[in-house]
Amino acid sequence: MNQVDRWMLPDGIEEVLPEEAEHIEALRRRVLDLFQRWGYDLIIPSMVEFTDSLLIGLGQDLDLQTFKVTDQLSGRTLGIRADITPQAARIDAHSLRRDGINRLCYAGHVLYTRAKSALASRNPLQMGVEMFGDDSIEADIEVVSLLLSTLKEADLIDLHIDLGHVGIFKALAAEAQLTPSQEKAFFELLQAKAMADINAWVDANLAGSPAAPWLKALPKLAGAANVLHDAKAVFANAPAAVRKALDELVVLAETLSERYPQAHLYFDLSELRGYHYHTGIVFAAFAAGAGEAIATGGRYDHIGEVFGRARSATGFSVNLVALKRLAQPSCDLPTGIFAPHSTHPAQWQAVERLRDAGERVVCGANWQSAPNEYQTCDRILVECDGVFEVKAL
Amino acid sequence: MNQVDRWMLPDGIEEVLPEEAEHIEALRRRVLDLFQRWGYDLIIPSMVEFTDSLLIGLGQDLDLQTFKVTDQLSGRTLGIRADITPQAARIDAHSLRRDGINRLCYAGHVLYTRAKSALASRNPLQMGVEMFGDDSIEADIEVVSLLLSTLKEADLIDLHIDLGHVGIFKALAAEAQLTPSQEKAFFELLQAKAMADINAWVDANLAGSPAAPWLKALPKLAGAANVLHDAKAVFANAPAAVRKALDELVVLAETLSERYPQAHLYFDLSELRGYHYHTGIVFAAFAAGAGEAIATGGRYDHIGEVFGRARSATGFSVNLVALKRLAQPSCDLPTGIFAPHSTHPAQWQAVERLRDAGERVVCGANWQSAPNEYQTCDRILVECDGVFEVKAL
Repeated sequence: MNQVDRWMLPDGIEEVLPEEAEHIEALRRRVLDLFQRWGYDLIIPSMVEFTDSLLIGLGQDLDLQTFKVTDQLSGRTLGIRADITPQAARIDAHSLRRDGINRLCYAGHVLYTRAKSALASRNPLQMGVEMFGDDSIEADIEVVSLLLSTLKEADLIDLHIDLGHVGIFKALAAEAQLTPSQEKAFFELLQAKAMADINAWVDANLAGSPAAPWLKALPKLAGAANVLHDAKAVFANAPAAVRKALDELVVLAETLSERYPQAHLYFDLSELRGYHYHTGIVFAAFAAGAGEAIATGGRYDHIGEVFGRARSATGFSVNLVALKRLAQPSCDLPTGIFAPHSTHPAQWQAVERLRDAGERVVCGANWQSAPNEYQTCDRILVECDGVFEVKAL
Repeated sequence: MNQVDRWMLPDGIEEVLPEEAEHIEALRRRVLDLFQRWGYDLIIPSMVEFTDSLLIGLGQDLDLQTFKVTDQLSGRTLGIRADITPQAARIDAHSLRRDGINRLCYAGHVLYTRAKSALASRNPLQMGVEMFGDDSIEADIEVVSLLLSTLKEADLIDLHIDLGHVGIFKALAAEAQLTPSQEKAFFELLQAKAMADINAWVDANLAGSPAAPWLKALPKLAGAANVLHDAKAVFANAPAAVRKALDELVVLAETLSERYPQAHLYFDLSELRGYHYHTGIVFAAFAAGAGEAIATGGRYDHIGEVFGRARSATGFSVNLVALKRLAQPSCDLPTGIFAPHSTHPAQWQAVERLRDAGERVVCGANWQSAPNEYQTCDRILVECDGVFEVKAL
């Protein structure tokens, strides 16, 4: 292969260069500190695990997204993680085994075989939280609140949150006694928001069922918080599980508008993001300038079962690099002091004192009389009669 | 597979749980801040690259250590990085193309197909620096000094540094006109420190060569800084390249003893760590309680050639998790405030004020009257006549 090819990164694989890397590191610290102040304990899961541990009920999508290699030691298949959530669930169920509520957070790279959209990264730096052991709406409220605080921490203005509840569709599908293939067919029509097709399908398959008008109404129930009131009227006589789910959304909506009045909340009762593993509230955050969601999350109450310990669970993850790129420009990076070449121990001591005081000091090579521009120095260390002083450049 | 198997991590693959993860994160920040104060700019390379970019002249070992997968987009082979140095070299040569000295640093996980020793991790968290564009001994002095400062930053006492210079053996092998197979044979004897075999081999292969006594003396030249004086006598009439390399070691020894009097320096002229890609000073750091080196580094002046831009280069990398485990116990982790369950907006505001002031506040579930022990709270938020106060628990 020639030199030009050696320079290239694979499509969708990105690296971050100095100046942007400093901003990302600063944001990473602010967000991890925020998670810590909310009581979320940091874990550092591994880059690889047995696929049997990684691919646990989070759907076939995750399987297709996961690069696999053979472990030379065990002969078994390892997956390079495409999601950190299953790792957190395993750590909750087995490594920690805490009795009560367990709050965990993480920051790390994941890898996808294929990008989720044409311009998206295959190698995002994910940060996220998971809360295990609390099946109440309070847990969902805390997690969505923390997502909104995370976006505020990144100085993101114009916050948009899409909220849904997969429990509503699940309860209606059960009430209508949909077969698995019917559920799949209707699910696909719903995702396409194909109103006419939805009505025709319900008339053809569920004529006379009490669930028929409810299923027809579902795709129309999307918009600001007032759709929840419309939904209350539509579902007044629907099964208790539907009304309970709706009540949860109402409490969530009220609490979030009170806590984060600047956030735009959008409710969509046919939004079924992660339908195959989510079990309750689901949500996604969008920002002006990005077509993709920058954070997604929701409740997934059954994931721990495969590890022998079913636990309630809710959480979110956010792509840190995307978040930084959407955030307001942060303050300037610190400048430094240029120390011209010297083998004099007194200069070394002066340099060390400045560094101990938090200054950035760049030592010059013996052919270098001034700093390079990319070394971003605005001061210079000079010797006057054996004393070292910092002067402006 | 049964549940027990699902809990297990592959051999040599490790995860880090909450308390230790906080200490590692704190150390990661201290070390990155130290690198930044020394003028090293952070880069965030990707977890995977084309093997043609990753496996560039760093030896066959790295090839065997690298997990490979097929890129579904290009059909080409990707390597999961087992070393970040080749990525930094590519970024220096191509992505940045800075004219002068380029100082880079990084922190990230690497992955090995097989652990380097029985108990070592296959998934270490590596931090390191690379300095490009300076072929002088001053660059080596700066990099070894920064390594020693890094170990000090981790409060590691009892520092041991092994130092060598592959230039000495390379120049002697050239002087003796060793064939490649002879060089390989002698290299292996030298690594085994098989004195009698070394003497017999030299007598059999190099009888009468001026290099014979020098090659015989090499394995004996190991110990504290005084071996450099012995070496000066032994190599008084050796080729200029040998004497130049020795002079570099002398300057390095003098400077390091002056700057870091507490560090134990050990010189070994037959230490040829990374002989196939290193070109000058090589070094490794050891600490009491660890058989493995916790940091390794050295000069590798030709790595950029495959990217079309040969650059002088020297650097080191350290395993952050191992470093934390050897370090003195750091200070206690911060405790928190327990906020009993409440849906009262005034409590939320009180909690937010405390978090904004840097406090860790853990919200209780509605069935929870006191914090769990692992939530490490030593205070509680209580309401007295509508006012929220923090009291000791």
